[in-house]
Amino acid sequence: MRKEVKKLIEENTIIQAPMAGVTTPDLVSEVSNQGGIGNIGAGYLDIPSLEQFIDNVESLTDAVYGVNLFVPEKAEVTQEQIDEAKQIFIKNVPNYSDHLPSSFENFNIFNQQVNLILKKSTPIVSFTFGVPNQEIIEQLKQAGKYVIGTATSVEEAIVVENHGCDAVVVQGSEAGGHRGAFIGEDHLIGLMSLIPQVADVVNIPVIASGGIMDKRGFKAAQCLGAATIQLGSAFLMTTESNAHEQHKEVILNSKETDTVITKAFSGKSARGVKNKFIHLYEKNQDVLPYPHQNSLTKNMRKLAAENNDPAFMSLWAGQSVRLSKRQSVKELIAEFKK
Amino acid sequence: MRKEVKKLIEENTIIQAPMAGVTTPDLVSEVSNQGGIGNIGAGYLDIPSLEQFIDNVESLTDAVYGVNLFVPEKAEVTQEQIDEAKQIFIKNVPNYSDHLPSSFENFNIFNQQVNLILKKSTPIVSFTFGVPNQEIIEQLKQAGKYVIGTATSVEEAIVVENHGCDAVVVQGSEAGGHRGAFIGEDHLIGLMSLIPQVADVVNIPVIASGGIMDKRGFKAAQCLGAATIQLGSAFLMTTESNAHEQHKEVILNSKETDTVITKAFSGKSARGVKNKFIHLYEKNQDVLPYPHQNSLTKNMRKLAAENNDPAFMSLWAGQSVRLSKRQSVKELIAEFKK
Repeated sequence: MRKEVKKLIEENTIIQAPMAGVTTPDLVSEVSNQGGIGNIGAGYLDIPSLEQFIDNVESLTDAVYGVNLFVPEKAEVTQEQIDEAKQIFIKNVPNYSDHLPSSFENFNIFNQQVNLILKKSTPIVSFTFGVPNQEIIEQLKQAGKYVIGTATSVEEAIVVENHGCDAVVVQGSEAGGHRGAFIGEDHLIGLMSLIPQVADVVNIPVIASGGIMDKRGFKAAQCLGAATIQLGSAFLMTTESNAHEQHKEVILNSKETDTVITKAFSGKSARGVKNKFIHLYEKNQDVLPYPHQNSLTKNMRKLAAENNDPAFMSLWAGQSVRLSKRQSVKELIAEFKK
Repeated sequence: MRKEVKKLIEENTIIQAPMAGVTTPDLVSEVSNQGGIGNIGAGYLDIPSLEQFIDNVESLTDAVYGVNLFVPEKAEVTQEQIDEAKQIFIKNVPNYSDHLPSSFENFNIFNQQVNLILKKSTPIVSFTFGVPNQEIIEQLKQAGKYVIGTATSVEEAIVVENHGCDAVVVQGSEAGGHRGAFIGEDHLIGLMSLIPQVADVVNIPVIASGGIMDKRGFKAAQCLGAATIQLGSAFLMTTESNAHEQHKEVILNSKETDTVITKAFSGKSARGVKNKFIHLYEKNQDVLPYPHQNSLTKNMRKLAAENNDPAFMSLWAGQSVRLSKRQSVKELIAEFKK
């Protein structure tokens, strides 16, 4: 299984970024069926949901696909901090303050997710927000899985390689969604700088991610030393993605200067189209650390989706929004094969 | 003359970025003699100095070269603001507070610079920090000069084209030195996103700048839709550049995560290697607007250079510092021709 994946990477197979909340069995399986590599964004999925997702994907494709997990972080908060954050939230967003969670679970089912995947035939496991210890990576590799880490700097890429990963996704400053930085602060390195500097020091394949929407970026990334690319926004816009219609509509009508980095939604830096919620939190840096802020805003995001209200949705998008279009997965992948 | 330059751009001739204070007649002429396009960073040069610089370059080369000018900005400050900024400076940097300027000249010799260049045979004129009015651009073109503007977003690139410029330098977030943004705030768009989005909407040649140090970036920029590239840090590191030895040494020993965007030196955003001076101003956003902060820190920068004290120099550099090396202009340009 590992050999097969290795060959696909060497053959520059394009990868669909594992966007938690956006990926569906239809999206993942269709990407793989069309000759790409689909990825389940499993970060927030509990064990029964993840198993169901994997089974659904496998019922729809025999091709290689992956599962992405969030490496858990410890972030202790006091009840006082939570109460204060709630007050700020109620003041900022009175319209969505009726259903605030009463307790903040520190969502951590990482080890159970790993154990489930060890039992399943999933060919690729990738990690974001850090790298698990070498023991877990070795277990996964022994079970035949190809393991991919995520880095936003050269130092992080070296750690990913040293922990035994088979490949590294390098996330440029252009990328939409959450930043994968896990050592020190995030320095937002552009892909033009990040790819060659990482490629010079690691021996594992480099997968470029951030702002790539079409064949021009695919070729450019390869010139810079990447084996292949991972696309987020481009797949988010496809018919098969689970992104909210309003989310897609906003991206379609945005300019490259409309996205910003914000911690307002989750407590962790992420790039998305600036909306009213981001604006309300702009001058207030008092967000709870991830994942607590994520818990705080969870109901708001759910209700905003039900209300078709993009002002309070997390409108994740990379900096190449002007290149976005509505199309099927098949059409998108076909463009890269031309 | 315009035709000759047009051909050079179409032939993907690499351009040396016009780094004010770093360029010397030796650097500019050697770049052009080696088959690149040298550029005089004339932003801060008075008329006699600029004329002397041009004459020196022309005595050393018959090849095409350019002059870069800063489009002036109006930034009114009160005596109270200046006094406050001086107090902050004295508190932050007591060691370099003995020679603070008594008055802040609002340096503006732009029109005289343009008039001088109109009289000279300089083949290329480029602009940073804005675009002059169409009349000036038309005059320069009538005088046979090829005119280049600088943009950090699609909107700015459209303005550059609409004002009549022959080509546009797009400055990615990776770039070292001052940011050329002139419409709204700077959004730090990475080249992977910026090049294709600009190339899709303008008809003039796109010149990519930011983080490109070697042939990999050259090819990548062309894949993305650029005609050619402009290199700053790479030429700053050459034997012929006037950058301080300590500046070169710091770059040589820096990592991609060591550069930051700061307004501390000039009041305008610029990327450089983080040092003590940037750190001291980090939490203090009370810098004077450009060019007043530049006047405030001028003596400090001069004295720090005399003292070989990089902690208080402006150590401009792009995000690809790991790719930097000490070499001659001839060796650098030869690498691109391999």
